[in-house]
Amino acid sequence: MTTPQQAGFAMPAEWHPHTRCWMAWPCRTGLWGDKLEGARAAYADVARAVAEFEPVTMVCRHDEVVDASLLLGKGVDVLAHDIDDSWMRDTGPSFLIDGQGGLGAVHWRFNGYGGKYPDHANDAEIGRIVAERARAQVFTSDLVLEGGAVHVDGEGTALVVETAVLNANRNPGLTRADVDRRLFDLLGVERVIWLPEGHEDDETDGHVDVVACFARPGVVIALASHHETDPMAPVLRRNIEILKSAEDARGRRLEVVTVPAPARRRGPDGRRLVLSYINFYLANGAVILPTFRAPEDHRAVRVLHEVFEGRQIVQIDAADIVLGGGVIHCITQQQPAA
Amino acid sequence: MTTPQQAGFAMPAEWHPHTRCWMAWPCRTGLWGDKLEGARAAYADVARAVAEFEPVTMVCRHDEVVDASLLLGKGVDVLAHDIDDSWMRDTGPSFLIDGQGGLGAVHWRFNGYGGKYPDHANDAEIGRIVAERARAQVFTSDLVLEGGAVHVDGEGTALVVETAVLNANRNPGLTRADVDRRLFDLLGVERVIWLPEGHEDDETDGHVDVVACFARPGVVIALASHHETDPMAPVLRRNIEILKSAEDARGRRLEVVTVPAPARRRGPDGRRLVLSYINFYLANGAVILPTFRAPEDHRAVRVLHEVFEGRQIVQIDAADIVLGGGVIHCITQQQPAA
Repeated sequence: MTTPQQAGFAMPAEWHPHTRCWMAWPCRTGLWGDKLEGARAAYADVARAVAEFEPVTMVCRHDEVVDASLLLGKGVDVLAHDIDDSWMRDTGPSFLIDGQGGLGAVHWRFNGYGGKYPDHANDAEIGRIVAERARAQVFTSDLVLEGGAVHVDGEGTALVVETAVLNANRNPGLTRADVDRRLFDLLGVERVIWLPEGHEDDETDGHVDVVACFARPGVVIALASHHETDPMAPVLRRNIEILKSAEDARGRRLEVVTVPAPARRRGPDGRRLVLSYINFYLANGAVILPTFRAPEDHRAVRVLHEVFEGRQIVQIDAADIVLGGGVIHCITQQQPAA
Repeated sequence: MTTPQQAGFAMPAEWHPHTRCWMAWPCRTGLWGDKLEGARAAYADVARAVAEFEPVTMVCRHDEVVDASLLLGKGVDVLAHDIDDSWMRDTGPSFLIDGQGGLGAVHWRFNGYGGKYPDHANDAEIGRIVAERARAQVFTSDLVLEGGAVHVDGEGTALVVETAVLNANRNPGLTRADVDRRLFDLLGVERVIWLPEGHEDDETDGHVDVVACFARPGVVIALASHHETDPMAPVLRRNIEILKSAEDARGRRLEVVTVPAPARRRGPDGRRLVLSYINFYLANGAVILPTFRAPEDHRAVRVLHEVFEGRQIVQIDAADIVLGGGVIHCITQQQPAA
């Protein structure tokens, strides 16, 4: 079977112009509990913010179309489809382009984050549905993975975290070299930079999209901690060291810009909340940036403003989103212009 | 007695570079009630945001220095002094410059917003105290007014609202021409543009700084309402028409950029909250912009981003500030570089 790479496709960076943003409406009541309404308002806030810059489609369950439409307003499209949960970064397709007007998509095998959610049959299909709606050529991955587990620079380099990608709950027996080869086949990636560990208590087992991302070729933004008693501080320091000494696919030494994480804060279930400024969405001309009512918010806005010169920084209070385990990047999925 | 104008002083526009921002710590328990802690957290948020761009001094009562310092962090200076309330825009001095390194200040006569607050003896003095701390030459105004009642473009034009400035509770018997003359003497203003009415239920009787401000010479930002049932919609439309047909001191027709107001929302006392995106603070290189958890937030961010090209827009959730009657411009006062 022809791989995407053989067909001339590669995954573009997130700053490549978009034609649309895809999202999924919060619906898993077991996850959100009495925070569901707050989550919906916050997702709607993100959707409306993105819709100032590019079209947005919200996938939502059939019986929730009316309520969602009311909250979203007329600036956001709604697509009715069965879903189990609402993290379009992970269950949606990773779109590809071939540089000649062709749009492709990797449909990842999704197993409920390593079997943590047995009811994931709809979410295991939604990536294909979205890709088909976008009229993309769909390539089904044999790798079990989620979109939030990989970042690319669009010039041959990827960032991943070992604890998620090599976890036995997803791809037992696979080695780094196996993954490197598959990411080459699927995303056109020639060099994979491996980080050892992700965010504390991250249910995804450590998605890269809460600890590091590319800002442009050769430049990475990484989460840091200035709270010395934070058990995550040494983990993040190690990631930053690895990034600083890494070379990308073009042979460049990476420049690393750091953003300080808020102090450790626990959710109602006692687990640490994922409060990461790295988990933003790049819309056309804008950065949709989560804030956490934390003293570090202003510094994060400032760093992002400087890194993404000329882009509008739109802050979104993400306090009601993080209760579900993710932030803004987790709930969005860009469809690049082909 | 020499007027500021005779001494060569004039009030610069707010985009003139600042050496410092002055604020006052929330303290009037009768005003804030059980919202005092929320207000303090929000004021601290504003102070820390501004402190990313310029020095900030927070004036606070002697017995609240420790608590305030803890919330403000080490990036904000604290000055202990008696105050009655916490609206430095209104009780602080309006600083002047003479273009030759001299700093002046108008110390307004303050009467508790037309006698609404009988206990205002400390606040009636704080403008002079701040001006002296800043080593400004102090000019005491015979006009009863507050800083939030006047906006200038730094090139001879001022914006004011009739219902505040000509109110019998402040300056009984004064005519427009009287005020024009005094603003010339005090601020060096050659042309005053008069708007008939301000924001609904504004306790200040209609400060201009919630309905219109200059963005740069020749360009005004005005609050509009797209909610057709909003009783304020015709008022704001009329202001905009007047602004559009006005000429400034240099003979320019004003360009008017509008920002939509959120829908009418009432506070616990039944009065309409002043939810105005016009009431931002211009820090060096930044716009400290209030947001209100309203659908209009994103549009406001976008408009301000476009108007103030190159400035960083820092959003602040102002929900806990507006309960006291003002927004971000109301609680800040810039000290311009002399």
